[in-house]
Amino acid sequence: MNGTGDVCGSVEPMSDTWGRLKARLEELRDLGSAQKLFEWDQAVLLPEKGGRGRAKAAATLEGISHDRLTDPEIGALLDELEADDSLPDDQKAHVRVTRREYDRATKVPADLVREIAELQGISYQTWTEARPKNDFKMMQPFLERLVELKKREADAIGWEGERYDALIDVFEPDMTTAEVEKMFADLVTGLTPLANSILDAAGDKPEWLNAPYPEDKQMAFSHWLCEQIGFDTKGGRLDQSPHPFTIQIGVGDVRQTTRTEPNTVMDSIFSTLHETGHALYEQGIPEELNGLPAGSVASLGLHESQSRMWENQVGRSRPFTEFMLPHLKELFPENLGSIPFEEFHRGANYPQRSLIRVYADEVTYNLHVALRFELELAMFRGDLAVADLPGAWNDQMDSFLGMKPSTDSDGVLQDMHWSIGALGYFPTYTLGTLYSAAFFDKANTEFGGLEEDLRKGDGSRLLIWLNDNVFRHAYLREPKSIAEDIIGGPITAGPFIEYLRTKYSAIYETQF
Amino acid sequence: MNGTGDVCGSVEPMSDTWGRLKARLEELRDLGSAQKLFEWDQAVLLPEKGGRGRAKAAATLEGISHDRLTDPEIGALLDELEADDSLPDDQKAHVRVTRREYDRATKVPADLVREIAELQGISYQTWTEARPKNDFKMMQPFLERLVELKKREADAIGWEGERYDALIDVFEPDMTTAEVEKMFADLVTGLTPLANSILDAAGDKPEWLNAPYPEDKQMAFSHWLCEQIGFDTKGGRLDQSPHPFTIQIGVGDVRQTTRTEPNTVMDSIFSTLHETGHALYEQGIPEELNGLPAGSVASLGLHESQSRMWENQVGRSRPFTEFMLPHLKELFPENLGSIPFEEFHRGANYPQRSLIRVYADEVTYNLHVALRFELELAMFRGDLAVADLPGAWNDQMDSFLGMKPSTDSDGVLQDMHWSIGALGYFPTYTLGTLYSAAFFDKANTEFGGLEEDLRKGDGSRLLIWLNDNVFRHAYLREPKSIAEDIIGGPITAGPFIEYLRTKYSAIYETQF
Repeated sequence: MNGTGDVCGSVEPMSDTWGRLKARLEELRDLGSAQKLFEWDQAVLLPEKGGRGRAKAAATLEGISHDRLTDPEIGALLDELEADDSLPDDQKAHVRVTRREYDRATKVPADLVREIAELQGISYQTWTEARPKNDFKMMQPFLERLVELKKREADAIGWEGERYDALIDVFEPDMTTAEVEKMFADLVTGLTPLANSILDAAGDKPEWLNAPYPEDKQMAFSHWLCEQIGFDTKGGRLDQSPHPFTIQIGVGDVRQTTRTEPNTVMDSIFSTLHETGHALYEQGIPEELNGLPAGSVASLGLHESQSRMWENQVGRSRPFTEFMLPHLKELFPENLGSIPFEEFHRGANYPQRSLIRVYADEVTYNLHVALRFELELAMFRGDLAVADLPGAWNDQMDSFLGMKPSTDSDGVLQDMHWSIGALGYFPTYTLGTLYSAAFFDKANTEFGGLEEDLRKGDGSRLLIWLNDNVFRHAYLREPKSIAEDIIGGPITAGPFIEYLRTKYSAIYETQF
Repeated sequence: MNGTGDVCGSVEPMSDTWGRLKARLEELRDLGSAQKLFEWDQAVLLPEKGGRGRAKAAATLEGISHDRLTDPEIGALLDELEADDSLPDDQKAHVRVTRREYDRATKVPADLVREIAELQGISYQTWTEARPKNDFKMMQPFLERLVELKKREADAIGWEGERYDALIDVFEPDMTTAEVEKMFADLVTGLTPLANSILDAAGDKPEWLNAPYPEDKQMAFSHWLCEQIGFDTKGGRLDQSPHPFTIQIGVGDVRQTTRTEPNTVMDSIFSTLHETGHALYEQGIPEELNGLPAGSVASLGLHESQSRMWENQVGRSRPFTEFMLPHLKELFPENLGSIPFEEFHRGANYPQRSLIRVYADEVTYNLHVALRFELELAMFRGDLAVADLPGAWNDQMDSFLGMKPSTDSDGVLQDMHWSIGALGYFPTYTLGTLYSAAFFDKANTEFGGLEEDLRKGDGSRLLIWLNDNVFRHAYLREPKSIAEDIIGGPITAGPFIEYLRTKYSAIYETQF
């Protein structure tokens, strides 16, 4: 190809190989953009009767994307590019991430992919019926079959340490079961006694937490708040959906949602801060990576580190609650007009024993996650029969929080994750929590005055730091190495536990 | 294929051919659904910075759809199915419509398609600059080139009577230049003197028409109004956009938009009624046709017949304005509290001479369209040089409405249509107007009490009639035959002119 064209005369043959791969990657990106808009629209806007047609259309796009990703020509281009040491670093990263996706898509036999997809559909549908009926037996055969199929999937993909590694790797590349298991063990050891001491000290729930807050004003506050901390509304949107989420539809189009509840304002504030954390990460991915494979967030754990940091380390901090309160008093004078700051800050951090993960607070949340991780790992390893899940769940809740669900609806049936076979997903929630505490600690020591910034509602210097340390790396490197460069070694539960101890010691004026 | 499967044992070979075509049509439908969601989202929600990425993604989907539509295998399946007289009628219709789309997509050489697409892009961009600059010379070379390319396109597609037939046929299948020319000639002859008499009688514009109307209340009224006349919000949505439009994203998902202006309520009311007319047609397409090619509205003219009917024959009628007024008085007591019904009805029908088509009223609108049709036909035939367009425009405005634009911005540069080479499109606006008057007349004679229905805001019997006579035919038949079955012969300007004469004679208590 050398010297054949006026414009491209100096282009090396290998660059042409990259150009051919890039054209295919851009096509996959664009198809993905349509799939993500379908998904966002379904969660936020889609009229009821449009559901069936939409499901078909989404499956068609999924099929076209899958066919194009698994085209052997992509494999051949990857082979060629992987052999070329002279490739620029960003192209090497795109090749690495594409190889990962290509291998996952081609190694699992089509029959198995189809069987899992079909089973997920019917199993999820069954879960929506089993939960209100409090009938775990309905779910049992589906879970048993899903575990079997996920084992076959893991074997098809391949693994080194143990089979569960292949499942974690989907969501948290380069992280192993052994590492995650150690992380949870440390966390449980340190957190269980601390959490129970804090919970015992918490006292009664303040009444003003659950009073009527007009939902249109909650949304107005959410819009104001996300812009205040740096969400770029020219490159994104905030809307409402029952389950808040963040999604990048395309370059310059990052959408987050929040939810409002009529009887509390805390839910919308902290959902918005949480999703804004995700959204700031998405908006911080360098534009020049332009939606290509390495131009994405690096892992779910890192993603969650951002949402948790803005929700908790920033949002629930003393200086930031101090910043928010006058604005909230102005919007909701009936509810908050006479609430002193100390009481508001305590309310924003009010912990309580609860059976349901999604309503759990910062103190107890990760015990809920630890429980799920332990049970799903045991189940996947064959150490726990699916039939024994409900009992094991209840016993573990008792040992962590001293309470037992009286029904499986409030226990093992509460989450949808297992019903769709999403094993390996839960650990990323806790990984994100531990990252958020460690990263925030580091930011705090690396530049002074963060507390003063937050008291003014100014997150700009924190954002610059996050950009330097997290965002700009996108997925050019493995997430673990991005995190370890910040922390200075492997992640541990230490910084998170110390963060909770310090915060709650101040709130309840007790040394925990 | 006979007798080879348990379930399909009795299926004929030809059905298998149909099944193979159907699978491809469903895939095209699903890709089309993603393209339409892109389009809707871009007009309603897309953040500013998402525009560039979205344009690329939309082009990628367009390319994939085009490749799949023009696959020679589709041509082969069509050949086979066209030779089979035993095909059920609905399948014949799908084959007929697919043939039409396939031929259009394959007959025009790819080079020409690309050249037109590129020219449209840059020409539209130029128009957005030329209009505010009042600089027709900027547009002239683009229009000249577009006319040349559209001629080549028409020749590639083929035509019988004259070349412009091929352009009309895109939007109004089976309609010829000769028919449309005669329709406009009759219309202009009858309408010009009548319109000018009515305009002379109209008097000053009532002040309350342009007062501040809170826009959130306008939207609340629009939501209420479209549901009132039958729009199914479980199968669709109403949102806001600067240019109101209606689009079917997929089966069970028909979306309309409206707009609000701070200083008038009429704009939102009649935009909503107009788009609801389009939306009711889309929602009336039989579900069993399931988004396949003949399961669509039959033509733009028929589409516009529905929007115009609900906007004008229904919405601006005496009984329906009588129905709306008390509700509007309740919402806008400051503006309308003391307005007597006669004055409101007159205001809702207030006609005035205006240079701009999109602000034109029911009396003058079709003269604006006639002007465009005459000029674009003359230009396309070569009887009028592009350079002479501005002068011809101004002279024709003078002859129709006795006023001349002082700038090209208010004249020949006002519409975007020609800048993207959308020749043959304008006539469908007037065709729809004439259909609406003729259809409404017919409905009125075919069942009694329509006026009483409308006085109660009840459009249900009219909807049933429209369903029987228009909606259920979808695109199973040619649009002209659907219309002529209702009217009893070719469409003429007569019913529309008589409708205006009767209405305005009553409003101004004069015999026009």
